[in-house]
Amino acid sequence: MNLKTLAVLFSAALTSGVAFAQTNQAAVVEDFKPSVLNQPGQEFPQVNSQGYAKFRIKAPQADSVRVSLGLGGKGGTRLTKSADGFFTGTTAGPMDEGFHYYRLTVDGGTFNDPGTLNYYGSTRWESGIEIPAHDQDFYALKNVPHGHVQQVLFRSKSTNTSRRALVYTPPGYEKNTKTKYPVLYLQHGWGEDENAWSNQGRANLIMDNMIAEGKIKPFIIVMAYGMTNNIRPGTPGGLRSFDIKPFQTVLLDELIPYIDTNFRTIANRNSRAMAGLSMGGFETHTITLNKPDVFAYYGLMSGGVYTPEEIIDKTKVKLIFLSAGSKENPDRVRKAAADLKAAGFNAVSYVSEGTAHEFQTWRRSLKELAPLLFKN
Amino acid sequence: MNLKTLAVLFSAALTSGVAFAQTNQAAVVEDFKPSVLNQPGQEFPQVNSQGYAKFRIKAPQADSVRVSLGLGGKGGTRLTKSADGFFTGTTAGPMDEGFHYYRLTVDGGTFNDPGTLNYYGSTRWESGIEIPAHDQDFYALKNVPHGHVQQVLFRSKSTNTSRRALVYTPPGYEKNTKTKYPVLYLQHGWGEDENAWSNQGRANLIMDNMIAEGKIKPFIIVMAYGMTNNIRPGTPGGLRSFDIKPFQTVLLDELIPYIDTNFRTIANRNSRAMAGLSMGGFETHTITLNKPDVFAYYGLMSGGVYTPEEIIDKTKVKLIFLSAGSKENPDRVRKAAADLKAAGFNAVSYVSEGTAHEFQTWRRSLKELAPLLFKN
Repeated sequence: MNLKTLAVLFSAALTSGVAFAQTNQAAVVEDFKPSVLNQPGQEFPQVNSQGYAKFRIKAPQADSVRVSLGLGGKGGTRLTKSADGFFTGTTAGPMDEGFHYYRLTVDGGTFNDPGTLNYYGSTRWESGIEIPAHDQDFYALKNVPHGHVQQVLFRSKSTNTSRRALVYTPPGYEKNTKTKYPVLYLQHGWGEDENAWSNQGRANLIMDNMIAEGKIKPFIIVMAYGMTNNIRPGTPGGLRSFDIKPFQTVLLDELIPYIDTNFRTIANRNSRAMAGLSMGGFETHTITLNKPDVFAYYGLMSGGVYTPEEIIDKTKVKLIFLSAGSKENPDRVRKAAADLKAAGFNAVSYVSEGTAHEFQTWRRSLKELAPLLFKN
Repeated sequence: MNLKTLAVLFSAALTSGVAFAQTNQAAVVEDFKPSVLNQPGQEFPQVNSQGYAKFRIKAPQADSVRVSLGLGGKGGTRLTKSADGFFTGTTAGPMDEGFHYYRLTVDGGTFNDPGTLNYYGSTRWESGIEIPAHDQDFYALKNVPHGHVQQVLFRSKSTNTSRRALVYTPPGYEKNTKTKYPVLYLQHGWGEDENAWSNQGRANLIMDNMIAEGKIKPFIIVMAYGMTNNIRPGTPGGLRSFDIKPFQTVLLDELIPYIDTNFRTIANRNSRAMAGLSMGGFETHTITLNKPDVFAYYGLMSGGVYTPEEIIDKTKVKLIFLSAGSKENPDRVRKAAADLKAAGFNAVSYVSEGTAHEFQTWRRSLKELAPLLFKN
């Protein structure tokens, strides 16, 4: 994937806009409940059984409050002011299932909804809302053994910083002190950070549930911050000038050695996978091709494709997983996987039905990818 | 401590208001820099070398933007609108060193500053700002070995939930697989949650630094959510009706067994401490007196005092630590410690100079408490 392809990829992400499901204009059912991502005790925003979202914002002296849904902030919902000083409104249509970022525009300024929890996306902490999905059981918090999510601070000589990463260790990791585990390095998308996969993606709960059901063998997941292409510290760099080298150095020369030293890993290529969503897929694609001896399992989730020609040594690749939402460009991942299969690769494509360039696509992608990993 | 005392305690917390240091009205030095708690790339809010804070909020069509500093939201800074659509303003005086919660009032509505990170306090995610302190080195992120902060989800039968707690494991915990560690159970204050001690308090960095300097022997810290006095799930309960039983059950019957099973702890009273700030001090006071066989080290940080009479078996208490900010009621903890000493207890008081009912008091309190723990 070259920079032009990368630009197209993110251009798609940034303009995907309002995530309304395509449905008939049915009557809005008045069974709204608080979103599960609301702050404690907060009644709004609410979501109904059809996927409509209803907002209520207190701003007695304001003239205008708008809700922007979708990465690009296009469209959205203009709220109506009542005499009680609250602005209220409901989305024009049902929203796609799953997690969505949004923000408010209050008299021309950008703020978060004080009712909801915040999630880092688009290089800022955004408001979050969750539309209940028909398949939400696989990422629900259940009464099963739970793994831990650990914040580690590892030394990075290349950037002269102590860098934060999150590490999922599966249930039983503390007790099974003789067991060593394979590792999936799992990257967030542009504008997000190392919190995204566990906070927005619920990766730890997806793993806990699949392990409890016996669908996968336990493995470790490492989630690192991939926005290393900074103009200056703290300033996320532009996409068109994305340089993989700083992140590749942090990941391969600093983080992986830290993980292999501090966790009970099986420290070889066949027990190491890399996957990522969107920009994280770009990072995965580039780094796995640059360093074919490090990872044996590759996953791109709404993050481009591999072609047979760009992989030099076929024997070093155990799996290529390509996924996308049905509202993205699903035929591209299907065709790429078919081409890879025809060339003799173990390639799998997955399309998430009814979702776009958003986290529901990637939750489902992780659920599909996990059972395919570390089979050889 | 009875409920009346508790009410007084929190009344103090809620009205401590604007945390301005007492200084002469010197000229404001124009050496403002972005607060270290700003979101990536955000220039505002800024702090100068005197402790003044400067705010800048975009809201072109708004009539009024005010910054509320301090738990009670009293006082604050009214910002002035410029032709470019930004509201700007500087605090009326220098602020106390350390961390402060705040929020914006935009045309009558409550929002967070889009420039800063959010921190859970007052039962909502608030904006945070950090005033550089003369002693900030002890909680700085340094090039030393770092412990991990783990999110665990433990089963709670009494509440029929999987509950979240954070566990600090010291540097070397993963490699020293034969070593067992003492445990400090460390509680947040009213309206905060299990994130407070590591996010606002930097407890993990304080520990990392003290361990690196050889000032303390490594121990584990467990940080649990203590606002269990809920009217209904997700709704923090009132203070005047605070009932310790739900939290005491979660802590003693569910969390401690989980920790002792899943971490390498020394599972006895003499290797177990409990401490807390503000309401967490009230919880510590009540639970240590209710269950004298569980903990041997007690710490109340801006959270009341013990009297010699209320402790039934003196031999079970290895240490009583009492602290407060000099802007709270420091004589009370000094006198209480003196009374306890006179009665034969190992009691220590600590007063944080120039700070109020805020996290700088508690960061310093942890630094003072840690070397005193697990000596016997």
